[in-house]
Amino acid sequence: MELMPERQVQFEKMKDTLARCYELYGFTPLDTPLIEASEVLLAKGGGETEKQIYRFTKGDADLSLRFDLTVPLAKYVAMNAGALSFPFRRYQIGKVYRGERAQRGRFREFYQADIDVIGDGALSVVNEAEIPAIIYRTFTALGLTRFTIRVNNRKLLNGFYAMLGLTEKAGDIMRTVDKLDKIGPEKVKALLTDELSVPEDAAAEIMCFMGIRGATDEIIDALGGYAGKNALFDEGLSGLKTVTGLLSAFGVPAENFAVDLSIARGLDYYTGTVYETTVTDHPEIGSVCSGGRYDELAGYYTDRKLPGVGISIGLTRLFFVLEDCGLLNDDVPTAPADALVIPMTEDLTFAVSVSTALRDRGVRTQLYAEQKKFKAKMSYADKTGIPFCVLIGEDEIAAGQVSVKDMKTGEQKTVPVKEAGEIIRAAVEAAGTVKVIKE
Amino acid sequence: MELMPERQVQFEKMKDTLARCYELYGFTPLDTPLIEASEVLLAKGGGETEKQIYRFTKGDADLSLRFDLTVPLAKYVAMNAGALSFPFRRYQIGKVYRGERAQRGRFREFYQADIDVIGDGALSVVNEAEIPAIIYRTFTALGLTRFTIRVNNRKLLNGFYAMLGLTEKAGDIMRTVDKLDKIGPEKVKALLTDELSVPEDAAAEIMCFMGIRGATDEIIDALGGYAGKNALFDEGLSGLKTVTGLLSAFGVPAENFAVDLSIARGLDYYTGTVYETTVTDHPEIGSVCSGGRYDELAGYYTDRKLPGVGISIGLTRLFFVLEDCGLLNDDVPTAPADALVIPMTEDLTFAVSVSTALRDRGVRTQLYAEQKKFKAKMSYADKTGIPFCVLIGEDEIAAGQVSVKDMKTGEQKTVPVKEAGEIIRAAVEAAGTVKVIKE
Repeated sequence: MELMPERQVQFEKMKDTLARCYELYGFTPLDTPLIEASEVLLAKGGGETEKQIYRFTKGDADLSLRFDLTVPLAKYVAMNAGALSFPFRRYQIGKVYRGERAQRGRFREFYQADIDVIGDGALSVVNEAEIPAIIYRTFTALGLTRFTIRVNNRKLLNGFYAMLGLTEKAGDIMRTVDKLDKIGPEKVKALLTDELSVPEDAAAEIMCFMGIRGATDEIIDALGGYAGKNALFDEGLSGLKTVTGLLSAFGVPAENFAVDLSIARGLDYYTGTVYETTVTDHPEIGSVCSGGRYDELAGYYTDRKLPGVGISIGLTRLFFVLEDCGLLNDDVPTAPADALVIPMTEDLTFAVSVSTALRDRGVRTQLYAEQKKFKAKMSYADKTGIPFCVLIGEDEIAAGQVSVKDMKTGEQKTVPVKEAGEIIRAAVEAAGTVKVIKE
Repeated sequence: MELMPERQVQFEKMKDTLARCYELYGFTPLDTPLIEASEVLLAKGGGETEKQIYRFTKGDADLSLRFDLTVPLAKYVAMNAGALSFPFRRYQIGKVYRGERAQRGRFREFYQADIDVIGDGALSVVNEAEIPAIIYRTFTALGLTRFTIRVNNRKLLNGFYAMLGLTEKAGDIMRTVDKLDKIGPEKVKALLTDELSVPEDAAAEIMCFMGIRGATDEIIDALGGYAGKNALFDEGLSGLKTVTGLLSAFGVPAENFAVDLSIARGLDYYTGTVYETTVTDHPEIGSVCSGGRYDELAGYYTDRKLPGVGISIGLTRLFFVLEDCGLLNDDVPTAPADALVIPMTEDLTFAVSVSTALRDRGVRTQLYAEQKKFKAKMSYADKTGIPFCVLIGEDEIAAGQVSVKDMKTGEQKTVPVKEAGEIIRAAVEAAGTVKVIKE
């Protein structure tokens, strides 16, 4: 997953945009090791994880590369719980590793961007209500507007299945219901009755429940019809009401939000609100930002109860998917510099001084000192996308000025260095507001 | 090397400062894989590297973790040479891995910050002259002023030893001369004659050469006395003159620069100017930024001649050394947010709207939604260093205003949200100019 320089700059801009958004919500950056003792990473156990992990031996140590950012967070919070202030809000944008099984020479290294809010013993549901706001700000800051943040609540689902006396089958039922979009309601219902032995009337109830669609208010109303029969369900409904009730104050437009009762996610882990985010024009991508509320972050490392809520973006995948869909904005400035200083005299002293002065003014400046023809120097600016050339010949040196050439318009002006700096900075700042995603 | 949140923010600020400085010189960010095929990383071979590397097997693949940022760069440039524009200037701030031998459970993961300028076939010596400017800007931006950038030129050394007919022993001699500071000139001379069988008069010449000290001009003058006898020496002297001659135009003060003929560095690799950087008040730290000019970046991967010049900072080591020396500036704002919104009513709608409005104005805002006593909420702000609390009770809601409390002065004002945002941003921007290092 090595990128060419232009793509790399786009990717960096995406990372920066996410980091700045997360910081607006009070998340602090964290950096955890890529290598851990295998027993730490595999504490939770589990088949798929163990098969995909990069595990190796160094001396006597059994080590592995992290496969997500949650397990290292759990260890960090458990180890440092005494010194941290709760709620502890951290973001991390880092590489994780998952190996394809039995494929020669192939490895997969990719970025995830995670935020989590961890409480000490308890965590207000308002934190769950804030997550859609963070997702909304993040994706609009990236330049996407046509997307939907879908939420559901695991308590609602678990409460509903409890009402039907199907608690033990809830996991299997949810996995089946998850196929609704793919195979349609009739086949799902048949699977429920035939394979999971769900009674006919309960299956009908499930299909009816999953058929609840519409605007947020309509769904909340319809769910009200199930209230008062199961405490967990009522808790879930209350949580959903808090989340939907604060949406507008959190700045999330109704059109970017939907309650979706079919979302289940991470069956063993999540216990409250769960989130998925879909791109309107590209449903085939699936969810680009997912997560939820959990009750036990670090049960494998500490007895301390550490509930939390978090979301994760598979950043490398998102980036390549955006590229494939033609959604990466190639108007994002990707040049290594704003100005290319091109000396046309033997003595470089003035050209160097000009470069220094431009840098002092915050202009990213490259001094082109190679012995090449003038045309080759200009072509370097062209190829790398550097928007301004600053030409320095005998005339400029004599006048103590520089000639600034705008590579886009071809316009050229001879001005004092200070003015050159101002011209370039103004143009660069205007171009810098361009967003990474272009719809 | 996990850091607590405050330290992590300081470290991030250090990384950001470096990145912004490198970008001012036209370096583009690059991200190379942490895992590579072992044959790629070990192409150059060599004992110490092989012993320190993290090497493991995944399926049929023999893989290793990168131990520096240069080898992955070499591979990247060699693979993509056709698509890159030269000179190719890249920076990379990333983790590298070196294992201690036979120490149970111990591993070492640390950051390096590298820049390199790579030419295609040729590279102007002006790029070597620019490096001290980059080092100077970087360290002053971090907050350090009392440091010296030391340079030497390998051609000068190799030419000098050639004059003495000692080319074959040059490596051994340089390793011995390197001990000058530690064991003194007499013992060095004895080692030269007794262990390396350097003739008495040649050893005297070497001691005389290494005794050339003083201001840059004085050293250049003294070196002039050796000119005209060896072409390589003359080339080196010319290179040194270019570097020192452009210093002032590059904005490097004389007091932060020294020619130091005893610097040799990476005997097999560097071929021109070499650099070390020492902290005046802490010579015990050794060089905090080193590098040099080389002629073959990627000889193991391509026939293409790729000369370059680069420097590297061992960032993790630098950070801990600064901490140990008490040079980390604890006035750097490390709070996860600029404002903590504290609701004092049941209904959070107004508090949420205020949080959203503050974020829209660029204020990093945390909404404190936990059910705690007022004192506990204020104490959270105190502990995390959040500089402003925004209090919202019935009175504020009725007036459509907020009460802003400056946690440092204790001053509290009730103002419209817009004004609150302005007050907080102004204070935060002022505090944000504080540098990471405090001398």
